[in-house]
Amino acid sequence: MRLAVIGFGGVGKAFLKLLNDKKEELLEEGIDLKVNYILSSRGGIYNPKGINTMEFLNNSTTFSKDIIFDTILKNRDVDMVVEMTPTNIEDGEPGMTHITKSLENGFHVVTANKGPILLAYKRLKEIAAKSNVQLGIGCTTGGALPTVNGGIIDLAGSKILSIEGVLNGTSNFILNEMESKGVEYMEALKMAQKLGIAETNPSLDVDGWDTATKLLILTNVLMNQNKTMNDVKVEGITSITSADIKEAAKNGLKYKLIGRTIKKEKDLEISVSLQKIDTDNHLYGVEGKNKAVRYVSDTLGDLTIIGGASGVTPAAASILRDIVNICRGYKFIQ
Amino acid sequence: MRLAVIGFGGVGKAFLKLLNDKKEELLEEGIDLKVNYILSSRGGIYNPKGINTMEFLNNSTTFSKDIIFDTILKNRDVDMVVEMTPTNIEDGEPGMTHITKSLENGFHVVTANKGPILLAYKRLKEIAAKSNVQLGIGCTTGGALPTVNGGIIDLAGSKILSIEGVLNGTSNFILNEMESKGVEYMEALKMAQKLGIAETNPSLDVDGWDTATKLLILTNVLMNQNKTMNDVKVEGITSITSADIKEAAKNGLKYKLIGRTIKKEKDLEISVSLQKIDTDNHLYGVEGKNKAVRYVSDTLGDLTIIGGASGVTPAAASILRDIVNICRGYKFIQ
Repeated sequence: MRLAVIGFGGVGKAFLKLLNDKKEELLEEGIDLKVNYILSSRGGIYNPKGINTMEFLNNSTTFSKDIIFDTILKNRDVDMVVEMTPTNIEDGEPGMTHITKSLENGFHVVTANKGPILLAYKRLKEIAAKSNVQLGIGCTTGGALPTVNGGIIDLAGSKILSIEGVLNGTSNFILNEMESKGVEYMEALKMAQKLGIAETNPSLDVDGWDTATKLLILTNVLMNQNKTMNDVKVEGITSITSADIKEAAKNGLKYKLIGRTIKKEKDLEISVSLQKIDTDNHLYGVEGKNKAVRYVSDTLGDLTIIGGASGVTPAAASILRDIVNICRGYKFIQ
Repeated sequence: MRLAVIGFGGVGKAFLKLLNDKKEELLEEGIDLKVNYILSSRGGIYNPKGINTMEFLNNSTTFSKDIIFDTILKNRDVDMVVEMTPTNIEDGEPGMTHITKSLENGFHVVTANKGPILLAYKRLKEIAAKSNVQLGIGCTTGGALPTVNGGIIDLAGSKILSIEGVLNGTSNFILNEMESKGVEYMEALKMAQKLGIAETNPSLDVDGWDTATKLLILTNVLMNQNKTMNDVKVEGITSITSADIKEAAKNGLKYKLIGRTIKKEKDLEISVSLQKIDTDNHLYGVEGKNKAVRYVSDTLGDLTIIGGASGVTPAAASILRDIVNICRGYKFIQ
C-alpha cells in the first residue's frame, strides 16, 4: 500500500520511525507499506518508488516547496493518506480539505486529526462510502486506547446503549496527584506542566473540552448521531479542592472526570462532569495518564477497556493499527 | 450469507433466536444471514431457501435422520458453518471433523467449540488459509468478552508480550462469595451450584482447567505458538480458606484465579494459579461472573478488557459478532 503522510510533528515523526521498526513484521503478514509523500507545513518530499524514511529522518532532507497536497491529487500514485496535521475545531482546516479531497479521489484515509471528525464525520463517511474507501479514526478518541474498535468491532452485531469514559489523561493525572499527595489543584497542575503532561494553557484538558470532543466523536460514530458541542454539558476539574477529595476518600470514593452519553426517553444526554465513583466501577482503578471507556450493549453486556499508553509512539501505533486493520480487509464503513 | 448451524443446545437455540431479533438491524447494514441447515444430535432440517427459524423454534419441527453433516458437503449450498457441538478436549470430536471438512470445502467457520481449537488451531488455520476462508473463534475464550478481537484487532500492528486474565466466571464467583459472605469454599460452591453457575461436577472450572484451556488458545492464537496442556502449570481454587481471604483483605488484597503467559528468556511460562492482587491491578475489580484479560504490548502499551456477560444469549451474540466481522471483510487469517 502506497502512503502519503501529511504532518511532520511529533506523531508524524514517530509514525515514520515506527513504519521502519515494524517493516519486517508487517511484511511477514504480507503488508507492504511504502511512503511516497511526506508533507509538512514547510513543503514536501516525494519519491514514486517509496521514500527511505530512516535516511530521511536521520538526514533531515530539505522539503521542496513544489511538493504540496495538490501534487498527490495530480499524480494519483497513493492508496492511502495519513492525515496528522494539528487539530482545529473551528473549521477543521487544513485537515478538512485533505481528508475530503482524499476520500473524493478514492484514497483511504487514516487520521489523528480530531477537528474534521468532530465537525463532519457523517459527511466524510458518506463520501468514503461513495468512493468505496475506508476512513480510520481510531487515533482521534484516545490514541492507543481502542475506543472506536471497541465500539465497532468488539461489539459488532450488538447495539450500544451508553458510553462512559475517562478520556483525558491530563486531568486524570492531576486528580491522581491531588489524591495521592494531598495537594491543591494549582500545585498538581504545575507538576503536570513540569512533566510535560499538561500544556502551558491547560484549558482544553482541565475544562473538559478534550473529553467532550472525544465523547462527541464516539457518540456520533458508534450511535449513528450527528451531535455538536452545543449538545454537550461540559464541566471541568478546576473547582475541585483537596478537601473534596479527602472527604470522598473517607467513603471509599474517588473523583474522576467522566464523559457520558446515555439514552433518555426522547434524546441522548451527553455530558462531561466530575463524578464520585466507588470500587465497583471499573473506571475507579484508571490511574495516572491512563484512559478508559465503558460501553453498555444490548446483547454483549458491559465492556470496559482500560489502557492507552500516552506519548507519540503509542499515538503513531494507533494510526498503524487502523492501517493494518484496513489492510486486513475491515470495512469500518460499508 | 447462507449458514449451516450445527448444535442445537442452549447456545444454538439462543443463536437462532438472536438471528431473528437482529434480522432488521443486520439487513440495514447489508448483512443478510439465511439458515439453510440446522443439525442436532437427533438429525437435521434443511431448506435451500432458508429456514424460518422462529417458526422452527416455536413449533419444534421434527428433525430428519437423513439430513446430516455430509448432506451439507454434498449440496454445497452454504457459505459458513456455525459449529456449536459440545466441547470435547480429548479428540475434539465431532467438532473436529465438522470444522476440518467445512474449511477444506471452502466454507467459513465460526465456532463456540473449544476442543478443536485447543487441539489443532495451527492446522485448522493452515487449512483455512489454503481455502481462503475465515475461522472465527471468539466465543471459545470467554464468550462475550472480546479476548481474541482484543489481541488480534485492537492490538493490530503491535506484538503481545504477555497475557493475563480472569477467564473463568464460576471460580471468580465462588471467590467473591467467600470474600463477601465470609463462607468457606464448599458453601460458596453449593451456592454457585444452586444458582446454576457451577456444574454438578465443578472440576473443569474450580481446578483451573477451563482457565488453562482459554489461556492456551489465546497463547497459541495471539503469540503464534503451538503449546499443549502439558506446557501449562495448573492450580485451582479448592484449597483456599476463608481465613486466607480475610488475611489478604486486611492488606487490601484479593485472591483471583489468574491465567498468565509471560515471556521468559528461552520460552514462555504458562500458568494458572491463585494470585493475591491489589487495587492497582485492573483485574482487582473483576467481580461476580465477570471476566477480564490484560495484554501487554510493545507499541500500544497495556490493554485491559473487562466484561463478558454470562449466559447463552451473550455467548450466541459473540458468535454473531464473529459472523458480522467476517461479513465486514475482516481477515483474521491471511
